Amino acid sequence: MRALRYHGPKDLRLELLPEPKCGPTQVKIQPAFVGICGTDLHEYHSQTFIPKHGEPHELSNETAPVTLGHELSGTIIEIGSEVPNSADLKVGDRVAVFPLLYCRTCLPCKDGYLNCCVKKGFIGLSGSGGLGDFLCVQPEAVFKLADNISLELGALVEPLAVAWHAVSESGIKAGQASLVFGTGPIGLAVIQCLRAMNAGEIIAVEIAARRQEFAKKFGATHVLDPKHTDVIKTARELTGGWGPPIAFDCAGVPASLESAIHAVSPRGVIMCVALWEKSIPFNPNDLVLYEKKYVGCLTYQLSDFGSVIDALRDGRLRPEPMITRKIPLNRVVEDGFDALINEKDKHIKIMVDLSAL
Amino acid sequence: MRALRYHGPKDLRLELLPEPKCGPTQVKIQPAFVGICGTDLHEYHSQTFIPKHGEPHELSNETAPVTLGHELSGTIIEIGSEVPNSADLKVGDRVAVFPLLYCRTCLPCKDGYLNCCVKKGFIGLSGSGGLGDFLCVQPEAVFKLADNISLELGALVEPLAVAWHAVSESGIKAGQASLVFGTGPIGLAVIQCLRAMNAGEIIAVEIAARRQEFAKKFGATHVLDPKHTDVIKTARELTGGWGPPIAFDCAGVPASLESAIHAVSPRGVIMCVALWEKSIPFNPNDLVLYEKKYVGCLTYQLSDFGSVIDALRDGRLRPEPMITRKIPLNRVVEDGFDALINEKDKHIKIMVDLSAL
Repeated sequence: MRALRYHGPKDLRLELLPEPKCGPTQVKIQPAFVGICGTDLHEYHSQTFIPKHGEPHELSNETAPVTLGHELSGTIIEIGSEVPNSADLKVGDRVAVFPLLYCRTCLPCKDGYLNCCVKKGFIGLSGSGGLGDFLCVQPEAVFKLADNISLELGALVEPLAVAWHAVSESGIKAGQASLVFGTGPIGLAVIQCLRAMNAGEIIAVEIAARRQEFAKKFGATHVLDPKHTDVIKTARELTGGWGPPIAFDCAGVPASLESAIHAVSPRGVIMCVALWEKSIPFNPNDLVLYEKKYVGCLTYQLSDFGSVIDALRDGRLRPEPMITRKIPLNRVVEDGFDALINEKDKHIKIMVDLSAL
Repeated sequence: MRALRYHGPKDLRLELLPEPKCGPTQVKIQPAFVGICGTDLHEYHSQTFIPKHGEPHELSNETAPVTLGHELSGTIIEIGSEVPNSADLKVGDRVAVFPLLYCRTCLPCKDGYLNCCVKKGFIGLSGSGGLGDFLCVQPEAVFKLADNISLELGALVEPLAVAWHAVSESGIKAGQASLVFGTGPIGLAVIQCLRAMNAGEIIAVEIAARRQEFAKKFGATHVLDPKHTDVIKTARELTGGWGPPIAFDCAGVPASLESAIHAVSPRGVIMCVALWEKSIPFNPNDLVLYEKKYVGCLTYQLSDFGSVIDALRDGRLRPEPMITRKIPLNRVVEDGFDALINEKDKHIKIMVDLSAL
């Protein structure tokens, strides 16, 4: 079968591999669509999550080269003999794949916070992923798509679940205002989830003109350009003088964090929906003086996948326009990674269509 | 009347002032005991909260020189003609004084979070405090002491309320383990409040030998010296391998924050119960990778004063041994401030006895 494998930074190769066998406790998927994600791009530049030679991931037992792809939908083509009937799966089911690898035995796993598993990994990074013709996974990892959800949208469940988790964890209530810093794919997904949960004013903060347009399109009620606008002052003016109670920092840069902390209302919450590389200067007094909270968010729980699929089914989430390009597997580097690097503002989500040639 | 007034750094003067008149909406107090606090000490070195000449505090309208003292108990000696009967106060009532100044009109004030008032101040810092023979305050600022609570203990209500607030806000449940970094007066108060709320294992982390002893005395189940013990490893061993879900950082130094963040369990909470001076290097990934929360805590709400007095009344809080010295008003500099600087580890709370000569 074909597979796009990561051998090292800037070394992705389309290779022919033997077709994986479906284990008795697994289901075999034929991937349909796979989104390219910021983490893939980060890994393309600098190998961080993908295990290096001699250091296999504890759960996948794999090292580079690994098949990329962790935002994926597909169709079930085989079900292992020991998969229980209670899994309620059949060949032909269209599914989104929950890509987390987790140990099931640590405290966070037992509490349902698989995202905080002490051994956590991802298919498509720590082990084989969706950018190939076949993939075998545990039955718990497949979420059936309702009939009215296309396979394209199925591949958006994963990034939407990141946002759904962050918005749920923020505790935002219907009608409450919020700030969203950075409107790349995750920021746009946060805006859509806020809408789906009936939040109030959504004040997006974004530098890039094209992304500002996207933010409006997906439901931001206000879009501020921090180059030309005093974000803190304006956010307060837009919310009765006090600032929104919640900010989502999807940019993850010192300027967005600083604005977020100062723009939220007293006792406000700053949700960190970004990964950071280095330490930054930070004064805890910025939290203390008005009893603010800074909260780390990471990926999703199983329930977030279910919630997103439900919201796609009933139309509360309509993320179709996030897909700005579809490409075949043999063009992933040129039309996928390079496009995301060179035409950053033009694209939200580039989707690999495994059936395209 | 006598009053100990702050004129500037290291310039405290015992002066004779005219006795203040009780306004129609005020009550007049004769202070009995006044604790010296870390903030007083900080101000003694460097003027931060006390308003400077020409920059009066918005609520007190005062500038230096101001009469110090914000941890105080006293006796009501006069009640203004317009104080409503519903205040249920009478001459002779023994009270603790809630020292916050607040505007009553901002959003946090309306929400009951007077500690987050945008104009907030303190009697004894932003305006006249308890280190004098008389003081007039609003009736809302006095909390009657039950008959079995001494006036000495009444002056401990304020620091205990800081701790009570932090422990309440942490959401800790009965039986849950916690870490307490730094066992000065506030850390010791946190330990006592944790005990009063039936928390589980209390792991204190403290460098100074004398303070380690105090921590044990007040109810820490374990006391770790970070010079000789791997705090993160030990905290995990003491709590089934995962670390406590909550840490209270009462030290407020980079090392305590870093240990606290790494020692709490996945999805753990770090309560910041300290003021900071400068920015420090901080990597938000330390929160993100296990969905941890960093929460600012500041002083108290009115309800915390009530809760502390109730716990003193029924014996859940027994803070008597926190008072390590009582001194008269004319010895505050020598036996109070200088002792806290030069014999730091020896004292927890030095109490000024206004009736002593």
